Amino acid sequence: MNGHFITFEGGEGAGKTSILPFVAANLSKLGHDVLTTREPGGIEIAEKIRHIILDPVNTKMDGRTEALLYAAARRQHLVEKVLPALKKGKIVLCDRFVDSSLAYQGYARGIGMEEVFTINQFAIQNCMPNLTLFFDIEPKKGLQRIAANKDREKNRLDLETIQFHEQVYEAYKIVERKFQDRFKTINAEQSFERVESDATNAIVSYLEKTKS
Amino acid sequence: MNGHFITFEGGEGAGKTSILPFVAANLSKLGHDVLTTREPGGIEIAEKIRHIILDPVNTKMDGRTEALLYAAARRQHLVEKVLPALKKGKIVLCDRFVDSSLAYQGYARGIGMEEVFTINQFAIQNCMPNLTLFFDIEPKKGLQRIAANKDREKNRLDLETIQFHEQVYEAYKIVERKFQDRFKTINAEQSFERVESDATNAIVSYLEKTKS
Repeated sequence: MNGHFITFEGGEGAGKTSILPFVAANLSKLGHDVLTTREPGGIEIAEKIRHIILDPVNTKMDGRTEALLYAAARRQHLVEKVLPALKKGKIVLCDRFVDSSLAYQGYARGIGMEEVFTINQFAIQNCMPNLTLFFDIEPKKGLQRIAANKDREKNRLDLETIQFHEQVYEAYKIVERKFQDRFKTINAEQSFERVESDATNAIVSYLEKTKS
Repeated sequence: MNGHFITFEGGEGAGKTSILPFVAANLSKLGHDVLTTREPGGIEIAEKIRHIILDPVNTKMDGRTEALLYAAARRQHLVEKVLPALKKGKIVLCDRFVDSSLAYQGYARGIGMEEVFTINQFAIQNCMPNLTLFFDIEPKKGLQRIAANKDREKNRLDLETIQFHEQVYEAYKIVERKFQDRFKTINAEQSFERVESDATNAIVSYLEKTKS
């Protein structure tokens, strides 16, 4: 692989999704070839899988069924979109990846991080991100941001209890310790501009390191 | 679990699917409470997943995506249908289960049996069959049977090459060695009546053993 696989992770209201396109634009201005994506990423099979996961009719869905479906959608998105871009030498910025499954399903939903990691390893075959930016914000503050933003449509996760979001946060801290080499924490409690520039700088500094 | 989980396995044309309801009827006559099923087993979420797998539009589906989808459908079918029946003390006769994934996807499709077993373990959490009847027929003979039966609609697997079916057969032999304790081989090259009675007797003798 000539490219660089970079993921954006964090809880709700951390701002990672809003900031991602700005970071991509900054990198493009610096002459990099960037692809931005998020699962299911417009991949037809992955979209169909996601439709099953999110269909409110499927209330009886078991947690492990859901985790396997996420892994299946991840696999297809990786094979059809991420890997071809990496082969072409692009920088791929992906909004959420394996770490989200570890935090949300493995830890907060209680299935177990190691077990969820196992099925994800089957899906990604060691294609882990080269760099992961963790957008760090206290769960309460993240939720306050979401509440203040009236344009944002509430999704299933926004409606979970504060305890759930605190567990997600706790989980990210565990994942961060486990994958210290690729994790870079961004203070997401700062202003939008500051977070954007910290995230951009973190990537630029990673790229410089890999050159040398 | 008070019940008994019994699976029927074998290559194409082994007759297991035709024989299963007759075996179930024989067991019912002997006073047993029997549930017959097969994945996706009428479970709505599992049916939807299967629809994605079999949709001919999804030609770009990766082998690992498919394996994860099968595991997801298996999980839901197990949780919603098989486990509740076992808890009620029923005998569950299931047409194909984990061993099919090991043989078809793990071995014949080349993903690797151990790896496919790993994601299936996530799905079934050690709920392995108590008894597995392997309907043993030489692949060539099985395919000849299918060709002779004009009422049978050809499915995707019937259209695979003979080499593929021979690999499936080879795989079942490996699985049989791995799980000797629960595998019982039925000579499926005999007459329908003979196979039916051998299969019924194998189950009856298993049930007697578990009693003592």
